[in-house]
Amino acid sequence: MERYDQRIAIDTLSSPESIAAALSGLHPADVADALGRAGVDGEILTRILAELDTELAAEVVINLDDHTLEDVLDVLEPPEIAQITSELESDDAADVVGLLDEDKKAHVLSQLDSDDRKAVEDLLQYTDESAGGIMASELVYVNSEASVDDAISLIRLAADEVEEIHNVYITDRARKLIGVLPLGTLLLARKGTRVAEIMEPDVVFVSAETDQEDVAKVFMKYDLVAIPVVDGEGILVGRITVDDIMDVIRDEADEDITLMAGTRDEEIHEDSTLKVSWIRLPWLVIGALGGLASASVMSLYSFSLEKVLALAFFIPVITAMGGNVGLQTSTIIVRGMNADGWLESDVRSRLLREWRIAITNAVVLGVAVFLIVGLWLTDWVLAAIVGGALGTVIVVAATLGTIMPFTLRRLGVDPAVAQGPFVTTLNDVIGILIYLGLATLFLDMLS
Amino acid sequence: MERYDQRIAIDTLSSPESIAAALSGLHPADVADALGRAGVDGEILTRILAELDTELAAEVVINLDDHTLEDVLDVLEPPEIAQITSELESDDAADVVGLLDEDKKAHVLSQLDSDDRKAVEDLLQYTDESAGGIMASELVYVNSEASVDDAISLIRLAADEVEEIHNVYITDRARKLIGVLPLGTLLLARKGTRVAEIMEPDVVFVSAETDQEDVAKVFMKYDLVAIPVVDGEGILVGRITVDDIMDVIRDEADEDITLMAGTRDEEIHEDSTLKVSWIRLPWLVIGALGGLASASVMSLYSFSLEKVLALAFFIPVITAMGGNVGLQTSTIIVRGMNADGWLESDVRSRLLREWRIAITNAVVLGVAVFLIVGLWLTDWVLAAIVGGALGTVIVVAATLGTIMPFTLRRLGVDPAVAQGPFVTTLNDVIGILIYLGLATLFLDMLS
Repeated sequence: MERYDQRIAIDTLSSPESIAAALSGLHPADVADALGRAGVDGEILTRILAELDTELAAEVVINLDDHTLEDVLDVLEPPEIAQITSELESDDAADVVGLLDEDKKAHVLSQLDSDDRKAVEDLLQYTDESAGGIMASELVYVNSEASVDDAISLIRLAADEVEEIHNVYITDRARKLIGVLPLGTLLLARKGTRVAEIMEPDVVFVSAETDQEDVAKVFMKYDLVAIPVVDGEGILVGRITVDDIMDVIRDEADEDITLMAGTRDEEIHEDSTLKVSWIRLPWLVIGALGGLASASVMSLYSFSLEKVLALAFFIPVITAMGGNVGLQTSTIIVRGMNADGWLESDVRSRLLREWRIAITNAVVLGVAVFLIVGLWLTDWVLAAIVGGALGTVIVVAATLGTIMPFTLRRLGVDPAVAQGPFVTTLNDVIGILIYLGLATLFLDMLS
Repeated sequence: MERYDQRIAIDTLSSPESIAAALSGLHPADVADALGRAGVDGEILTRILAELDTELAAEVVINLDDHTLEDVLDVLEPPEIAQITSELESDDAADVVGLLDEDKKAHVLSQLDSDDRKAVEDLLQYTDESAGGIMASELVYVNSEASVDDAISLIRLAADEVEEIHNVYITDRARKLIGVLPLGTLLLARKGTRVAEIMEPDVVFVSAETDQEDVAKVFMKYDLVAIPVVDGEGILVGRITVDDIMDVIRDEADEDITLMAGTRDEEIHEDSTLKVSWIRLPWLVIGALGGLASASVMSLYSFSLEKVLALAFFIPVITAMGGNVGLQTSTIIVRGMNADGWLESDVRSRLLREWRIAITNAVVLGVAVFLIVGLWLTDWVLAAIVGGALGTVIVVAATLGTIMPFTLRRLGVDPAVAQGPFVTTLNDVIGILIYLGLATLFLDMLS
């Protein structure tokens, strides 16, 4: 009954014609979803799309997942791509054209009419992850001298071309943004009123260079459904709608999660084993090198380990704890930097908070492990060394986990890297150094 | 110049009156932001809020972060909370009332007028993370017999009460949802037209029980700005707007990330060291117990370790690799389950993919580590054991990382748990078993 539960299964053995006929009454997002899940190849997909009405086909294309979209674009000829592109809003058109190789891109652009071509070329100049990179150039704006009736006429003219109109933007003669008029206000306004009288002059906007993550923050802070984008001179150049922002919020989160895991989000739809392997290997190599560094640290302490082999047993306790504490701490810090805007000036207060927590956990776990090891091996000096090292490692890992994200940001690196394998590995090596160093100090007391 | 860059600094030494005066011209979200960052206590916050216009104060209150909001609600008396609540939309009102303890809640509800009370009580019945829990009861709906003019009159009446009107919902006499009319269509419609003629009958809706994560997926799939919510009989009971959905998308991502890190999102604004420690300790205890399990495994192999101490050196390489590979794999699987809807029936194909990648990485890293260890210690049997175990651990960890998320979901546990310390710890123990088992098998060949 619920619309979103409609999982249409495509009979992949049917002809493209009959599949297209079965799909033609559906919402483009449902069609795209069904085609993506059917797992048919680009060739057949293209033949199905060719059977659909051009406008529907275009809407389906931009709803395909990136992976399926690339398959389709590989097969389609430039004139066909141009035809689809001309049906789309400029931001979607630019996204499609941006996926093509240089040759095909030039060919497709040459087939577009001059307005569409200019719009797409303008948008392609902005970096992918900026406001300019996700905005559409289509929007409705009127001069502040205009009347409510003028604004409604403009909306009528634009209704075909602009997808979701939420606001009319008010500009001066130089197209500088000076106000905004929500559709609701327009609907209730008396005929003949000048827009300048009823517009909201205090308009929230972003510049085209703003990072998309910051744009998303503005949307969330002010509960927006659309935002106007201006250039360096305050001239209105486009608008971003909330549907693109939902994607940004989700994509940025996915990026953080996969970065934490030591891989990249793009691999999920990558079929080539070698390419995926190539994405994952760097992080595994870091882990392996860290492990070998740990091995060389241990070899330095061969003498101690030979004398008391049991020392070696507790290496995994120490390394697991350093990794887990470091991850907990760095995750909370990165989360606070992103959501609450913690700055480098907050390091001191964060460090004090993390130390309080770390010392509490260090005492609890240190004592617990001391008792367990002592009762197990009835060697209380060894137990004290393991418990003491464990406590120390917890405090050191919390310190690293707090400082690293701020340091990485200052170096221009994404702080989320601090949650990845790199810091865990560093904590491993430091933990073993602390533990075996401490053990060697008290070696004569060990039985 | 950009609106969102306005970081207002509050002079915490000023009187509440002069702080309120300085803030009164600003957007509620900016005021809330400034108050949250100023770090003043609930007492002073309340005095500042009391100086603001009631409507602004109410908007500021719902824009405060949860932590600051709780501080304020602790200090405010029930009549004051009721006054603020009555200014809010029902969903925000229910959020505020839901934060109070039972006693204060009853007191506040008794102070509300009967309509507001009923709306809040109705909404509080739904679970927090369902569509009912995030919807507002205020919305504009008309009978399908109504004309465009009737709809506009209704919007005029509701404009004060309903915050952002994007659509008018069309119902039958029993208030069953039968269509939707976007504001833009209404604006362009000829006077006197019946709404049934121009409405979109194919309306996307959810039921009140739908999980908020699924609601967010519907918003993203169909690019919505608002969605109607119906009860079991199809009766229209509320609507959800996209501003709440942006919060859901972000919150669910934060939840996944903090779960991966072995902590919980709520701790970020928790001041009590003991409470935070209590949140983090369970994961650290799992890690410690896993480490002790590793220690007891190693003690079983004391004989082998005593004979060839160098075997111990490579334990960290083995455990780090198992942890990293397990995390990479489980993250991609969980990501695919959430975003692409992978089902248990996909396990086989996912496993084949992950094995192809794991075997590639196992060969590359196994051979590399074999060469490094061999050249370092000039013990090629030991080198072969370390390299071979490393390769085996990579494949085993990839297998666990693939199967665990599906298994957890079948057991009714959030699959994201598979990315947390639990699986890493399990991989540690299994890795050491494989490594030392293999070493003992070939012990006689070791020098």
